[in-house]
Amino acid sequence: MTARILALSGGIGGAKLALGLYQTLGAGELAVLVNTADDFEHLGLYISPDVDTLLYTLAGLADPERGWGRAAETWQFMAELRRLGGEDWFSLGDKDLALHVERTRQLRAGASLTAITGAVAGRFGIQAQILPMSDQPVRTILSTDAGVLDFQRYFVGLRAQPVVHSIEYRGAGTAAANPEALSLLADPALEAVILCPSNPWLSIAPLLAVPALRAALSACRAPVVAVSPIVGGAAIKGPTAKIMTELGLPVTAAAVARYYGELLDGYVLDRSDAALAPDLGLPALVTATVMKTAEDKQRLAREVVAFARQLT
Amino acid sequence: MTARILALSGGIGGAKLALGLYQTLGAGELAVLVNTADDFEHLGLYISPDVDTLLYTLAGLADPERGWGRAAETWQFMAELRRLGGEDWFSLGDKDLALHVERTRQLRAGASLTAITGAVAGRFGIQAQILPMSDQPVRTILSTDAGVLDFQRYFVGLRAQPVVHSIEYRGAGTAAANPEALSLLADPALEAVILCPSNPWLSIAPLLAVPALRAALSACRAPVVAVSPIVGGAAIKGPTAKIMTELGLPVTAAAVARYYGELLDGYVLDRSDAALAPDLGLPALVTATVMKTAEDKQRLAREVVAFARQLT
Repeated sequence: MTARILALSGGIGGAKLALGLYQTLGAGELAVLVNTADDFEHLGLYISPDVDTLLYTLAGLADPERGWGRAAETWQFMAELRRLGGEDWFSLGDKDLALHVERTRQLRAGASLTAITGAVAGRFGIQAQILPMSDQPVRTILSTDAGVLDFQRYFVGLRAQPVVHSIEYRGAGTAAANPEALSLLADPALEAVILCPSNPWLSIAPLLAVPALRAALSACRAPVVAVSPIVGGAAIKGPTAKIMTELGLPVTAAAVARYYGELLDGYVLDRSDAALAPDLGLPALVTATVMKTAEDKQRLAREVVAFARQLT
Repeated sequence: MTARILALSGGIGGAKLALGLYQTLGAGELAVLVNTADDFEHLGLYISPDVDTLLYTLAGLADPERGWGRAAETWQFMAELRRLGGEDWFSLGDKDLALHVERTRQLRAGASLTAITGAVAGRFGIQAQILPMSDQPVRTILSTDAGVLDFQRYFVGLRAQPVVHSIEYRGAGTAAANPEALSLLADPALEAVILCPSNPWLSIAPLLAVPALRAALSACRAPVVAVSPIVGGAAIKGPTAKIMTELGLPVTAAAVARYYGELLDGYVLDRSDAALAPDLGLPALVTATVMKTAEDKQRLAREVVAFARQLT
């Protein structure tokens, strides 16, 4: 069946809500449009971290502690790579490697990232669409006080420690949007678009930087709702708050809503930020947004979907 | 120091004697020239099975049971590759993968197979030279009753079951020989060249098919000695005897000596084949050539080196 809810997501933070949506919606009702601007080639392998996190998370294969990579992973490859003097700043587990090697092979043989991702999701038994935002390269490049850095160098190699001056989504301006996402966004059966609580500048902005995606989101008749990644003036996880400060923004849920601007038809923020709701100029759902347990994820997913449906 | 013994080897069978030589000669006294006509690209990775077997064997990292690959290997990658529907007819262990991925990366960056192999040998603490026969592609192609087959398809994929009509060493005629091997073969300090008991047609013939290598072996002043891979009318391991039959040759140690022909200055054959020695037309060493234990390998290595030195 055609998806009725389209979620936009980066990696770990977004995948939590995506999992809640997946577990509470019916089979085939969810599609997730995923950031690919973190993708990179490493050791000759094409790695798509956010797509992988979604695949592993929805398949029930993700490591519950780390949030990325495979559960019960082993690290023999990395130990031997180190022995050989290879680059070891980016960890690739033995299980995880299979996806990188096989995907790289298929890409070189001419398959699209969308087709490969769909086939892997099928192999994993996932009854949702996982859609890379584009089959063309878009790359997040950060200007920092440590120089101009590729995303993974900044995020993994340097643990997001450099001060960010500006962010470029290289290639986004000319990238074609995922055609299935465009057709979903134009489909009258679509009930809601949900911007997951991913990092707005690192995970959601690259999708919005693809002109056809932004235009389709603006034109979409279904309500667009974002869940704030900022709770009580801090980020749940990752460098969102740090980056907001470096970009000169107040670290508030309201600043994130302003960043998304006219795209939004509704906003979901945490109880601790309830005082901000009246001034958003938007319908708001105030609820508990911190997702620690499976129940948290499912409850929030249900509430967000119900809230969005009310906005229609 | 410059090597004084140059061994020519394929994979498993040859590596046994190479290990015996390595353990009984002094540091730096051994160089091994290795077949690369079994090399292939698989899943986008450059795999050099015989070079790897030599690296792992001399480093003490080889699996003692299988004879190929790493000891205490794990197979998480393969299990996941299978789950993804990837090609699983060629087994790649998690540890082993590190070498394939890192070597492929370095080859794409422009390094030569010789340079990479030397660096890995250094990393592994190997005090011998491991020299790929050529930095250019030579590929063993078999015409069989199952069609024309790449080596690994024939050997691993089809377990050497098809009947072989003829064998081509594609690219050998125009391949440049390993320059370090050429310089060793021309070095007055070289004391012996030893053809290990590898499969003559699949493992040694590709080296001899490189014109500069054959010429250098013919011109070499040091004695060239082969150790028979045929013992008592059968091969110790692998398809040597089967291929000899299919090529219309008698399965005897003498037929192998005739195949090597004028290259040889001496021949080492098993006690069970002692009756063949008088008719070889060559100096012969008759001894126990089956290598099961480390002692077998070391004793045979010492005897072969002593025999070769007598021929000078």
